[in-house]
Amino acid sequence: MKVQIIGAGLLGTSIGMALAARGIQVGFSDLSVRSLKLAEGLINRDLPTTEDSNEPADLLIAAVPTAQVPSVIIDAFRRNLAFNFTDVASVKTKCVAEIEAFDAALATIYCGGHPMAGREVSGPESAQSDLFEGRPWILTPTHATSAETLSLVSGVLKVVGATEIRMSPSDHDRAVALVSHAPQVLASLMAGELALNSSQGVPLAGQGLRDVTRIAASDSRLWSGILSANANALNPILASMHGRLGDLISALNEPAEMRSIADFLDQGVAGRELLPGKHGARRQYVVLPVLIDDTPGQLKRLFNDAGDAQINIEDVSMEHSPGHPTGLVQISVAPDAAPDLERYLRERGWRIYPPRNPANLA
Amino acid sequence: MKVQIIGAGLLGTSIGMALAARGIQVGFSDLSVRSLKLAEGLINRDLPTTEDSNEPADLLIAAVPTAQVPSVIIDAFRRNLAFNFTDVASVKTKCVAEIEAFDAALATIYCGGHPMAGREVSGPESAQSDLFEGRPWILTPTHATSAETLSLVSGVLKVVGATEIRMSPSDHDRAVALVSHAPQVLASLMAGELALNSSQGVPLAGQGLRDVTRIAASDSRLWSGILSANANALNPILASMHGRLGDLISALNEPAEMRSIADFLDQGVAGRELLPGKHGARRQYVVLPVLIDDTPGQLKRLFNDAGDAQINIEDVSMEHSPGHPTGLVQISVAPDAAPDLERYLRERGWRIYPPRNPANLA
Repeated sequence: MKVQIIGAGLLGTSIGMALAARGIQVGFSDLSVRSLKLAEGLINRDLPTTEDSNEPADLLIAAVPTAQVPSVIIDAFRRNLAFNFTDVASVKTKCVAEIEAFDAALATIYCGGHPMAGREVSGPESAQSDLFEGRPWILTPTHATSAETLSLVSGVLKVVGATEIRMSPSDHDRAVALVSHAPQVLASLMAGELALNSSQGVPLAGQGLRDVTRIAASDSRLWSGILSANANALNPILASMHGRLGDLISALNEPAEMRSIADFLDQGVAGRELLPGKHGARRQYVVLPVLIDDTPGQLKRLFNDAGDAQINIEDVSMEHSPGHPTGLVQISVAPDAAPDLERYLRERGWRIYPPRNPANLA
Repeated sequence: MKVQIIGAGLLGTSIGMALAARGIQVGFSDLSVRSLKLAEGLINRDLPTTEDSNEPADLLIAAVPTAQVPSVIIDAFRRNLAFNFTDVASVKTKCVAEIEAFDAALATIYCGGHPMAGREVSGPESAQSDLFEGRPWILTPTHATSAETLSLVSGVLKVVGATEIRMSPSDHDRAVALVSHAPQVLASLMAGELALNSSQGVPLAGQGLRDVTRIAASDSRLWSGILSANANALNPILASMHGRLGDLISALNEPAEMRSIADFLDQGVAGRELLPGKHGARRQYVVLPVLIDDTPGQLKRLFNDAGDAQINIEDVSMEHSPGHPTGLVQISVAPDAAPDLERYLRERGWRIYPPRNPANLA
């Protein structure tokens, strides 16, 4: 098995490292000599690369930005560099259509892919062989894709530890428009408003604002390309939200429209309840807020005590108040375990707030 | 010192408990006999309440919903129940104006307030005497407010451990519109869109979507009242975001408008950087992502090791992949401490991803 990876960035290099670690023969190419050398240095150099053998690879992975995927794959197909092809772009419809339109033979040996792994760091220096472990990796085979190609690509996902999900290219693009691209737009919309009103109370920001805007810190050049490539799937969602925001503004201008305002908020409550919890299941956790001093060792002592209670902690987050040397650690546990953990921690002197679900601070 | 609290809900009861714990005489009133009895049971009954003494209280706190604050305070003033007045409503301009318009004498002995403490639980059963510790509590004195009244109210904030912040009522309302009410609207807008497209890929939801929509789970009746009461300050912000969202939709429809899309995202990056970190300061932390097994005791072992490294952990959050029995714990530390902690944890066998700032998963 030989895999040729075009693009020695974060994703390409991470895939190469994961495959090489399992003894699979990996070759890289990249326009940047520095990236290429670094990626090659990160994999086991004792293994011969495909460059050395000059024979077509079993699989070529185009780990380049969305807009470049079709030309990279078509060029590699023409040069007979591989028997099968895939890519890692986060928008699929255009890409798949261009590749399939080019040549019916290429269409049978190509299967689109999208690993949903971290992207806010970039370059081979950030690569890690376990980047995909437990992460969803969507494959978008079409009717043209051969069973052999799909099986080969699927096998690579297994090797790197990813969780395979199959969807059509258009279902994929609509899904990521809703769960990834639209949230990015709203986070940027809110954070951008802070930039436009920076004198207006930003120091009062609490956890709610921080959560809503966290992903607004992402790379804007990368995201311009993603939003633009997925405009067809994204725009109906943004148009719907634009209309609903307009309706809310009208309702807020009309004191009699309390019902519309509540309906808008209730729709949000209903949508929030649809989100899968851990492991894809819809589970509700009880949140125990514990007050700790802002000194080293406090978390150690807290998790020591929680660990001794033999209760599985499902989630942890920390919250701070401006100007105060204490922090609030919020521990999420299964509802039936919460009373035991609360009693256990209280007995050990921890100050615990009333259990609650994660929500807003008014 | 005697304090009379109207409204034995979460905030009123918590204030009463905190004051009673410091030996201050506290009386409650509430239309619900059950809430009243529970609140009275939660404070030290050995202390005489103001009901017992029948003399005016030094301070009356109206801990009732925003819309009821003016009538409650005016009624109490007419009945001579107290020498000074404050409230805890999360919108101030209307409230303060109505009270000051009623009587110039009342205006001198009233100072508006807004404790920014948890609200997603309610009722006296959720009250806790340390609810306000280290939390911002905004006071909105006007030119009419006497120095004595301001000093008295300010003293109560100190007693309950809150961090006092002074603002004009209109500055307060504009500030919370930006940092609290607008984020609530955007979270509901995004989560509501999930409800409208529930078949469309919601199971693929990652941490980004979860963060953006977390506060959409908040109580919609409470929030209808808040948004409606603060419509004057909130609507210009919502109108600005409505316009910017419309511009982005237009840009996405025009392939040549890549620059506009990047500008929109850059504005978000700039706004996100304005958010204060821990303790109100703008500090950047390095995030070490650590992969753990989903078994009890893993967090204990991790924080044990981190504690032994004598490095202060600034923030912790957890992230899970659907269908995989591992979790990613993200530990935030000061940039200069990160390499030491990373090396220390790696030596102890922890699997650490490349350090990164919290951002989106593409």
